[in-house]
Amino acid sequence: MAHKLLEGKKGIIFGALNNMSIAWKVAERASEEGAQLVLTNTPIAMRFGEIDELAAKTKSIIIPADATSEKDIENLIAKTMDHFGGKFDFILHSIAMSMNVRKGRPYNDLNYDLLVKTLDISAMSFHKVLQIAYKLDAIKEWGSVVAMSYVAAQRTLYRYNDMADAKALLESIARSFGYIYGRERKVRVNTVSQSPTKTTAGSAVKGFDGLMDFTERMSPLGNASADECADYVITLFSDLTKKVTMQNLFHDGGFSSMGMSSRAMLMYNRSLDCKDCPDYINDEKDISTNQ
Amino acid sequence: MAHKLLEGKKGIIFGALNNMSIAWKVAERASEEGAQLVLTNTPIAMRFGEIDELAAKTKSIIIPADATSEKDIENLIAKTMDHFGGKFDFILHSIAMSMNVRKGRPYNDLNYDLLVKTLDISAMSFHKVLQIAYKLDAIKEWGSVVAMSYVAAQRTLYRYNDMADAKALLESIARSFGYIYGRERKVRVNTVSQSPTKTTAGSAVKGFDGLMDFTERMSPLGNASADECADYVITLFSDLTKKVTMQNLFHDGGFSSMGMSSRAMLMYNRSLDCKDCPDYINDEKDISTNQ
Amino acid sequence: MAHKLLEGKKGIIFGALNNMSIAWKVAERASEEGAQLVLTNTPIAMRFGEIDELAAKTKSIIIPADATSEKDIENLIAKTMDHFGGKFDFILHSIAMSMNVRKGRPYNDLNYDLLVKTLDISAMSFHKVLQIAYKLDAIKEWGSVVAMSYVAAQRTLYRYNDMADAKALLESIARSFGYIYGRERKVRVNTVSQSPTKTTAGSAVKGFDGLMDFTERMSPLGNASADECADYVITLFSDLTKKVTMQNLFHDGGFSSMGMSSRAMLMYNRSLDCKDCPDYINDEKDISTNQ
Amino acid sequence: MAHKLLEGKKGIIFGALNNMSIAWKVAERASEEGAQLVLTNTPIAMRFGEIDELAAKTKSIIIPADATSEKDIENLIAKTMDHFGGKFDFILHSIAMSMNVRKGRPYNDLNYDLLVKTLDISAMSFHKVLQIAYKLDAIKEWGSVVAMSYVAAQRTLYRYNDMADAKALLESIARSFGYIYGRERKVRVNTVSQSPTKTTAGSAVKGFDGLMDFTERMSPLGNASADECADYVITLFSDLTKKVTMQNLFHDGGFSSMGMSSRAMLMYNRSLDCKDCPDYINDEKDISTNQ
Repeated sequence: MAHKLLEGKKGIIFGALNNMSIAWKVAERASEEGAQLVLTNTPIAMRFGEIDELAAKTKSIIIPADATSEKDIENLIAKTMDHFGGKFDFILHSIAMSMNVRKGRPYNDLNYDLLVKTLDISAMSFHKVLQIAYKLDAIKEWGSVVAMSYVAAQRTLYRYNDMADAKALLESIARSFGYIYGRERKVRVNTVSQSPTKTTAGSAVKGFDGLMDFTERMSPLGNASADECADYVITLFSDLTKKVTMQNLFHDGGFSSMGMSSRAMLMYNRSLDCKDCPDYINDEKDISTNQ
Repeated sequence: MAHKLLEGKKGIIFGALNNMSIAWKVAERASEEGAQLVLTNTPIAMRFGEIDELAAKTKSIIIPADATSEKDIENLIAKTMDHFGGKFDFILHSIAMSMNVRKGRPYNDLNYDLLVKTLDISAMSFHKVLQIAYKLDAIKEWGSVVAMSYVAAQRTLYRYNDMADAKALLESIARSFGYIYGRERKVRVNTVSQSPTKTTAGSAVKGFDGLMDFTERMSPLGNASADECADYVITLFSDLTKKVTMQNLFHDGGFSSMGMSSRAMLMYNRSLDCKDCPDYINDEKDISTNQ
Repeated sequence: MAHKLLEGKKGIIFGALNNMSIAWKVAERASEEGAQLVLTNTPIAMRFGEIDELAAKTKSIIIPADATSEKDIENLIAKTMDHFGGKFDFILHSIAMSMNVRKGRPYNDLNYDLLVKTLDISAMSFHKVLQIAYKLDAIKEWGSVVAMSYVAAQRTLYRYNDMADAKALLESIARSFGYIYGRERKVRVNTVSQSPTKTTAGSAVKGFDGLMDFTERMSPLGNASADECADYVITLFSDLTKKVTMQNLFHDGGFSSMGMSSRAMLMYNRSLDCKDCPDYINDEKDISTNQ
Repeated sequence: MAHKLLEGKKGIIFGALNNMSIAWKVAERASEEGAQLVLTNTPIAMRFGEIDELAAKTKSIIIPADATSEKDIENLIAKTMDHFGGKFDFILHSIAMSMNVRKGRPYNDLNYDLLVKTLDISAMSFHKVLQIAYKLDAIKEWGSVVAMSYVAAQRTLYRYNDMADAKALLESIARSFGYIYGRERKVRVNTVSQSPTKTTAGSAVKGFDGLMDFTERMSPLGNASADECADYVITLFSDLTKKVTMQNLFHDGGFSSMGMSSRAMLMYNRSLDCKDCPDYINDEKDISTNQ
């Protein structure tokens, strides 16, 4: 059900890879709500993904950009302003990647060039987008910028590795730049901290299924889906949330406010009763070689 | 601009005193968005307020209830279900009062019967509404409950007195009951932590103007108004925020994420330069007799 | 190993029931570190407990007091000042009790008289102690007050019931009164948020063992013991922490900063593999009748 | 008054420039409490500072190291282990620098090479120290690592610039690595969030005096000094805090838990009354050119 919440609004969506992506869902929903869009992703992601399909569906144009490249972002924003005939209203940043995770380097054996890459792709890219859009005066008064985050920014999850640090940095950038954008441009900047989601990126984390089961049972409303996340992001782009800024907003079925649920505890206690299960308790080898 | 976001939805609004009240604004906006409402307040507040005008404007009925009385709440919810022909979708709790503040008792000289009253009116009343609605199975699946809070629940503001403790209790009740409502009924429960607002209740706090000036300059987007708050609450009642629960959501122009803004610092520094100002620095008498 | 950290200091310890109590351990350690103590508990707790043994061991006197009674607290503090010949240095508040838990009333079926009792015993009693000590000017400059709390104040744990709300209120009182005590008396007020601990009170919570196992595996350093907690509280009473105030300090082996540990995940995943386990997943009856 | 709290303990102190440095004060106090130390700083800081004096006073050796250089840190830790004859007990990381601040680049005109430098010096250096110490198995069981942070990690302060983001990253690293160190080595890792302090580094921030005045009046116990900070860090290195890990610990006289104090409000209100003061309210030029 569309409500024309974004009628007449224009924006850029970063990070739509395929129809499992949160950015993809946001683009679809924004379009349904009346928004015009520019889609962008890295050239390589565009080759592997299906962004053309999304562009067709949402009547958007595509402008490739590597979000770590100031030159690419300048080009993207300048062309977007050309396309829209001036300033636009919103930006979604949904970009994260860790080369340390990909290379299988645990958190106690990071490669620091790769750490800089993780931070650059997943967090500094957000600053670059905000800074260049600021310099080009690209965002309208009462515009809205959202970046996707995860609870790992506050609480350590094993194997989440340097992505946790990148998300903490991302949320800090949202606050720091949100202050300037709010004061000078009346533009709000927030992060949405989303449940673990079965996207192509999310699934890359090892042991993801067990974690999803746990968070599903811990969250009183269950894990939030990518579709539900898109609905939520629409409210943040709409004019109904004008005074919400510099916030990290949990969209997670309640997980972030849970210490222990009866459902997760029941499952956990099962393992204490299990007679035919391997004795994981002393399985320190597995513990030591992974994070 | 209405978007019919609450088309077909029904709910109860607690605490609309007059057209400065947040609850009043929420009722107006909910009605514009297509909702049907039951309005409620204490008999005494109804005498002093102008709730009839609101009821006429929003085509609502009024059912008086003292939110500290289980009997009154039972009557309210039962009659509301009769009126709507079954379950309803949302509740707004916007009720707070401190008799210690009214009687001029500072936080280090509280009367404990009055403290229990403060907690009962401002926080336990929320539990009573949730518990009785739970027992009567009054709220539809994917319904939404919101209570109004304030940043004093996290950070001490002089003179805010026992209302700070009441808000901390209120937010805890939202989490505790949000867990059960989420798990059993798929209903979400959140609090909105609003900027200081010039309502009849807000203005009762002494020294309110200085504080409003300070928070206005500290918040990059300025203080959020009651009207803007109503817009935000609409999003929380809508189907676009189904997986947001057990959260305390700051609607405050960014205040909660600020340590010091340039605008507030400039004003503060002025006082250091002031030559014709009284020397408040040693004005300990005033400090000691107030909180 | 004693370091004479509290040499010459004097204080009151509330809540030492038996040698499993955190308050008991704090009293022992404070005495080792050179402090003189007054021990207090309710008359009924004194009958069931072994406080005489502790008094003998620590060369303390005992003054019975019901911490919900202003009269009792006045008597306690006045007599303590007589005993010590003037002001004293520290207070430990380690008192919590829920009659709703004892009567088996789940959080969605609270009795409100019992809720007021829970809040009075577990949180308002802290305000009463602080207020009466303030009026009697009982605490020395750079003195220190600590109350015991639990992470349930921030995150919901099933079955923790109205104790969660009481702890949230307790922590708010520490902030609110900490502001006044700091400004006027240079006294600090903090709460310590301790791991679940096998005390007589802790063990009263149903399903405590499963929770202890979970938090043990989630916490990188394991659950903190009562002995370790006592060590920590000593630092907060010492002169080494003079500028720490209005804080809730987690003493929990890291639990509060964890999202998921490898050890807890391994145990959780075992249950997914278990073939001879009952299918708890659909065991909704148990879930519905408990919190 | 020394209590021999660190008797027999050994550790490394990073960042002692001169006798205003927090690291300097920690070194002095650690030495008084019985610890043996290795002091380290960058070669350039050593030239400008007075570290030789500190080494003489505390009978420490000095090993120069650039904390951004893995090679230097390896050399430092290997030599420290040689010097101590094996593992040691604690590390203090007190290093922060922003080239963007030095070059006068505001947060909306960052140079990204300089941002990487800020993050490398102020945050990634902490990961490097932890990772190399981990690989060399340099820290004893129940050892303790502390890094100095600031409330800008949570709340934006104008002009604090990219240091806010660096501190957020630093605190995240403390959590992420604290998990692994806790689980595998029983070593704790925390950050201390200290009041603004008149160190050589602190004074570099423009408008520091006005901010110091504000935080002094906002904090019920006043700003915490470097000496008091040293006392607090001693408790974190001692055996009395073994189960405190992955925490950010505010040592700030209560500032972090304040929304508004009467003392700060009085000063702020003075500026509203000032008749001979320039009208800063419209002084947007100053606001725009600074952050």
